[in-house]
Amino acid sequence: MTRPDLIAIGAYNSWDIEAMEAAYTLHHLPAIDALPRLPEALRGQVRAVAYQGHHAFGGAEMDLVPALGLIANFGVGYDAIDVEAATARGVKVTNTPGVLNDDVADLAVALLLAQGRRIVQGSDWVRSGTWAKKGEMPLNRKISGGRVGILGLGRIGREIANRLAGFKMEIHYFARTDRDITGWTFHADPVSLARAVDYLIVALVGGPATKGLVSAEVIRALGREGVIVNISRGTVIDEPALLDALENRRIAGAALDVFVSEPNIDPRFLALENVVLQPHQGSGTVATRMAMGELQRKNVAAFLAGRELPTPVN
Amino acid sequence: MTRPDLIAIGAYNSWDIEAMEAAYTLHHLPAIDALPRLPEALRGQVRAVAYQGHHAFGGAEMDLVPALGLIANFGVGYDAIDVEAATARGVKVTNTPGVLNDDVADLAVALLLAQGRRIVQGSDWVRSGTWAKKGEMPLNRKISGGRVGILGLGRIGREIANRLAGFKMEIHYFARTDRDITGWTFHADPVSLARAVDYLIVALVGGPATKGLVSAEVIRALGREGVIVNISRGTVIDEPALLDALENRRIAGAALDVFVSEPNIDPRFLALENVVLQPHQGSGTVATRMAMGELQRKNVAAFLAGRELPTPVN
Repeated sequence: MTRPDLIAIGAYNSWDIEAMEAAYTLHHLPAIDALPRLPEALRGQVRAVAYQGHHAFGGAEMDLVPALGLIANFGVGYDAIDVEAATARGVKVTNTPGVLNDDVADLAVALLLAQGRRIVQGSDWVRSGTWAKKGEMPLNRKISGGRVGILGLGRIGREIANRLAGFKMEIHYFARTDRDITGWTFHADPVSLARAVDYLIVALVGGPATKGLVSAEVIRALGREGVIVNISRGTVIDEPALLDALENRRIAGAALDVFVSEPNIDPRFLALENVVLQPHQGSGTVATRMAMGELQRKNVAAFLAGRELPTPVN
Repeated sequence: MTRPDLIAIGAYNSWDIEAMEAAYTLHHLPAIDALPRLPEALRGQVRAVAYQGHHAFGGAEMDLVPALGLIANFGVGYDAIDVEAATARGVKVTNTPGVLNDDVADLAVALLLAQGRRIVQGSDWVRSGTWAKKGEMPLNRKISGGRVGILGLGRIGREIANRLAGFKMEIHYFARTDRDITGWTFHADPVSLARAVDYLIVALVGGPATKGLVSAEVIRALGREGVIVNISRGTVIDEPALLDALENRRIAGAALDVFVSEPNIDPRFLALENVVLQPHQGSGTVATRMAMGELQRKNVAAFLAGRELPTPVN
């Protein structure tokens, strides 16, 4: 009995590679630009791709694998994949929702606290010997009891809000519809949300529909005491407008896990003191990455067996 | 009408100095060792000291101010003040409880998240250009859903536990008595607590009664995957035992806001990668320091007016 072929694209952990090799004849590529270099005969027979990465997976790439029926994305955000092009070709797309909500929400709270309480500067203050030489670090900002706005009350946004409720924060949110949650305030547009809060946490999906939604106007509405936290996608924020506001202290700061051109981020970020920068590590824990890989493989296995897909996108 | 004298000891913020100068003839000393240099006649007439600092305020210092009736401490922890010596001299001691609980609890959660999700290393990873050169940082540890032990379920410990409940954590605690809280597990001794959890958060008061309570045995019980967070006092932990365990990876890490000999901390801490170090900034926010100064002055004013003290210690 021959095992089915599987193309795996991206930087997988050893446990994922081992699990895929155990079930499939695996063709592992470091990135999608290596796809044309696979033999045409092989490409012609592959029905499933396990995808990981932020490089565009468009119609042209799909056409390189003519019998393709599934792109199983590793990650909840599938904005790198042209879903419309996939649907037009009868290609199913799956993602890995749910299993990473806790980690991403944890990171959002970690970023909010690290920005307000200056954890990176505090660490430097101790390690550089400044504490012993100069005494206390400058006073920081109280977080508990503040007003927070969740931009996008999806699964992850909801987890963030639940955690911040424990910090006695006043919770505001923007979503497509009023969720009618007792004690939480709905805003029909992002500008109204930004105007009402001290901390704006971006928890929207990426992709064309949310591109630049955190506009210069939203940033202006947040105001001089405002802080932006982004754990979703860099594209959701008008990044040049954010950089201008940070450089000119028109907002108080930002804490960012995602950027427009990651990992080669705009060097203007590096000159800023009022930001906490992280390398897109929202789901970056061992437990969660294992769970994501498992869910990705469940989608591949279901597709190849002709069963219902656990977490389809289209 | 002459205004009463007040000796203020410590590094106060300008708003505190201004408020004290508005109400009293203020004699401001940078530290307690300057007390003998105040003219004897002045020392003889002062009835109240506003104290801030971690240097010992013992019977000998009290005897330099023979008419002393009040030491109003800035801070909830008054372990620097020899309360027994004060009581023996008929000197009342007050502190500033309550107003700083939120900040200290916020910092405890910030430290837990920063240690587990490697926020300081993540920041370095981005700022040093390593992200662009090498890709993702190493995977971290999932925090939500873990088992946490609160060592000391006082006002601050309770605030920490309330916050962590929002992270779906299994909550264990050590306290003098079983508080009988649904869903939270009581432990009658610190070793049992440490054995049951992944994260041990030290939230006890300082002073002789808790000195070295986090012993080598407690640290051993926490185990190789264990992490210690301390936002109370350095003295509560057997610091050499902690350093040994960290250096030999017998525990996974620590996040510390307080140290035995701060701000001149043991240099062995600086060689460790698995620790987050902060410069005793638990209550270090503008809002909270203002509230602490206000409460300190309320105690002074009440004492000098012969009224009941708002927050007495003895």
